[in-house]
Amino acid sequence: MDTFSVADTGDDDRRRPLAAPSGSAFATLSVGKEGAVLFVDIAAPPMNLLGPELVRDLVRLIAQAEADNDVKVLVFRSTDPDYFISHVDVTKIKEYREEAAKLTGEASIGLLFRYLSASRLVTISQIEGRVRAAGSEFVLACDMRFAARESAIFAQPEPAFGAVPGAGGIQHLARLMGRGRALEVMLSAQDYDAELAERYGWINRAMPAKALGEFVRSLAHRIAKFPAGSLAAVKDRVNAIALAPVDDFRRDSDLFGESSRSPEGQSRFQAAFRRGFQTRDAEMDLAGLLGDLGDP
Amino acid sequence: MDTFSVADTGDDDRRRPLAAPSGSAFATLSVGKEGAVLFVDIAAPPMNLLGPELVRDLVRLIAQAEADNDVKVLVFRSTDPDYFISHVDVTKIKEYREEAAKLTGEASIGLLFRYLSASRLVTISQIEGRVRAAGSEFVLACDMRFAARESAIFAQPEPAFGAVPGAGGIQHLARLMGRGRALEVMLSAQDYDAELAERYGWINRAMPAKALGEFVRSLAHRIAKFPAGSLAAVKDRVNAIALAPVDDFRRDSDLFGESSRSPEGQSRFQAAFRRGFQTRDAEMDLAGLLGDLGDP
Amino acid sequence: MDTFSVADTGDDDRRRPLAAPSGSAFATLSVGKEGAVLFVDIAAPPMNLLGPELVRDLVRLIAQAEADNDVKVLVFRSTDPDYFISHVDVTKIKEYREEAAKLTGEASIGLLFRYLSASRLVTISQIEGRVRAAGSEFVLACDMRFAARESAIFAQPEPAFGAVPGAGGIQHLARLMGRGRALEVMLSAQDYDAELAERYGWINRAMPAKALGEFVRSLAHRIAKFPAGSLAAVKDRVNAIALAPVDDFRRDSDLFGESSRSPEGQSRFQAAFRRGFQTRDAEMDLAGLLGDLGDP
Repeated sequence: MDTFSVADTGDDDRRRPLAAPSGSAFATLSVGKEGAVLFVDIAAPPMNLLGPELVRDLVRLIAQAEADNDVKVLVFRSTDPDYFISHVDVTKIKEYREEAAKLTGEASIGLLFRYLSASRLVTISQIEGRVRAAGSEFVLACDMRFAARESAIFAQPEPAFGAVPGAGGIQHLARLMGRGRALEVMLSAQDYDAELAERYGWINRAMPAKALGEFVRSLAHRIAKFPAGSLAAVKDRVNAIALAPVDDFRRDSDLFGESSRSPEGQSRFQAAFRRGFQTRDAEMDLAGLLGDLGDP
Repeated sequence: MDTFSVADTGDDDRRRPLAAPSGSAFATLSVGKEGAVLFVDIAAPPMNLLGPELVRDLVRLIAQAEADNDVKVLVFRSTDPDYFISHVDVTKIKEYREEAAKLTGEASIGLLFRYLSASRLVTISQIEGRVRAAGSEFVLACDMRFAARESAIFAQPEPAFGAVPGAGGIQHLARLMGRGRALEVMLSAQDYDAELAERYGWINRAMPAKALGEFVRSLAHRIAKFPAGSLAAVKDRVNAIALAPVDDFRRDSDLFGESSRSPEGQSRFQAAFRRGFQTRDAEMDLAGLLGDLGDP
Repeated sequence: MDTFSVADTGDDDRRRPLAAPSGSAFATLSVGKEGAVLFVDIAAPPMNLLGPELVRDLVRLIAQAEADNDVKVLVFRSTDPDYFISHVDVTKIKEYREEAAKLTGEASIGLLFRYLSASRLVTISQIEGRVRAAGSEFVLACDMRFAARESAIFAQPEPAFGAVPGAGGIQHLARLMGRGRALEVMLSAQDYDAELAERYGWINRAMPAKALGEFVRSLAHRIAKFPAGSLAAVKDRVNAIALAPVDDFRRDSDLFGESSRSPEGQSRFQAAFRRGFQTRDAEMDLAGLLGDLGDP
């Protein structure tokens, strides 16, 4: 057993522990390697908040996987059936931003996510449970997104808090679903199920949960058979068209920082906390909670 | 009772007449206010043609709503079950363009519609009946579009008249549905029902007529609860990506003017008038009328 | 009978042979003219490979049709129920590129296809059977694409060979279906049926094979009734938004050349030939063949 904790990724006999260049295991990720594919299970109880620990682990994982030429494809999953990544821990914005800076030199998870999009690594999100705000922005940064029809829930609800999506959500959603649907999704701060997310282009496809795992595993292994150079070249050419410039990610990141620190933003976050924000139970229906925020 | 005529917008007790800064009621709009939401019913018999009167009223409505910080969301509806906005009155192009110039300084409804898209106001179209040509372009200028599955009909048929869409249709459709579908829609001059319009991305969603009104009302009030600053900031950032530059709207507007005044354009319009163009009955099947235009 | 061979295009009595300006019939195309519509049937047995002969014929067809002001619309079909255009003949890249240069001055089918997209001619693909790689890129270059639900199959599988799509596939797919789906389609090198191709925006619409022919014929004749000037003007304005610049097509074309000539590309093509690549039977399941390429 090496420095990675190895998830149960099935009985494929090609599975082996990943040789990690640095010293310690991940606190919030469980990683299994099958050939050129890494299966990365997010496990940050109680609700997979994106805080300093998870960002630190993602930074290390990405750096290690990029340095390992045996790795071509990363599959992200969650060990929590209700939460894939809930959203950032808004009490630790400064701290998680500093962790992101260790890879990119800039204190912004938007730029960290864009770094992943621009990487030679092919990334696939296998989504069960909730992805809201930065959770949505993480899966949007992946190259492909497949979601369980029964359980996946999507939201980009920052405007309900007086803030703007700061980690690429605006950039990706406007390009994937067009002006009208992107505005609806963000201005409404509503929850969207997998079927509607597919119709809107938020994800590649929705499918039954029982078929999802095998579909993604098979796709990942198929891609991993193809030459690394052509995978990277196609990513580069597609990114030149469809991945927003760094400056636009930086601007959104700055706007999120400013709007979340504003008096109105702070007041909204406090009202949300009083209603159970950042607790597992209350966020099962975050859309409902947000609809009540302005009420006395 | 003040200067706005108040539509029956349900029994919500927050509903009250809008305090209008200027002097007279609208000739072609009926406006009701519920909290921060204005419900604007288009009523320009016999078929909701976009002529000088309706443009004048839209200009005044937009100016008044923008000046009233209590107003966040505008919902556009029609009192005519068969026509939302049929298209411009082609006998009064100069006149309605001059009305548009009173808001934007330029004699173009394309630039008026773009002004609305760029406004801080959040706009939603609740579409029952026909939206063709400038009618389609008006709903495309709104931030969101929801349509009744049974009755909504969409067309961008200018090429059948030897003209090009001049009020933003090219700009929006090419971005929302991609090159192939945008070309099909415009070059065919066909009618599209709400279900196909949804699949093509022309609208956000089609839904049963009996569910549409309550869905839109609920969405409008939800958005109106969120801070105005974040709504405007998200619109700005999305518009920077997905709303075409002013110059492109201006160029299309000029092309429409030139093509509609050309001998071929004039001849086509005259042939259409001989077949009932700009009459309520004949335009129930405008697509059929246009298909016969070239015949002897 | 003139220099065009005339396909059986139904019993429309407006059908007549096309007056061809140059001397010889086509070797791989069968062309019928009905009014302002040319029906072009691709017939290059055994599997409609895009080699020097088919490129030469397409070049001549396009040049002749553009020179004939009576022609407004081109409909492309296949006489082979299993293959529309399979892909390029990879043993004759230099030769077919030289044929393309006769129209555009540049040895690239990507630039030939872009020339067709930018032409005043309105082009419609009626797809039955397989369109893979350059076959997909040809139909993407057309203005509209309609496909038979039962038989049409789509793939953009160049990365499986260590190559990148070189004739516009990257440019069109990234814009039509967005970053996530475009990456999935190309990196997976999978086959996609017409229904999924429609959901992803690869084609305008999938429909039953028995309805397809009449739908396309009717659409083509409808468009052909409208003034040529407005058809061309709308194409120009849409292309200004949604057709990638020449430089991007040129860059992809160069990358395909380089990657297909590389040692890894050559080794992959040879492995594919050993498994039946470029034979009619083996390519019925090309996706399966490609998935096995890396195996010993």
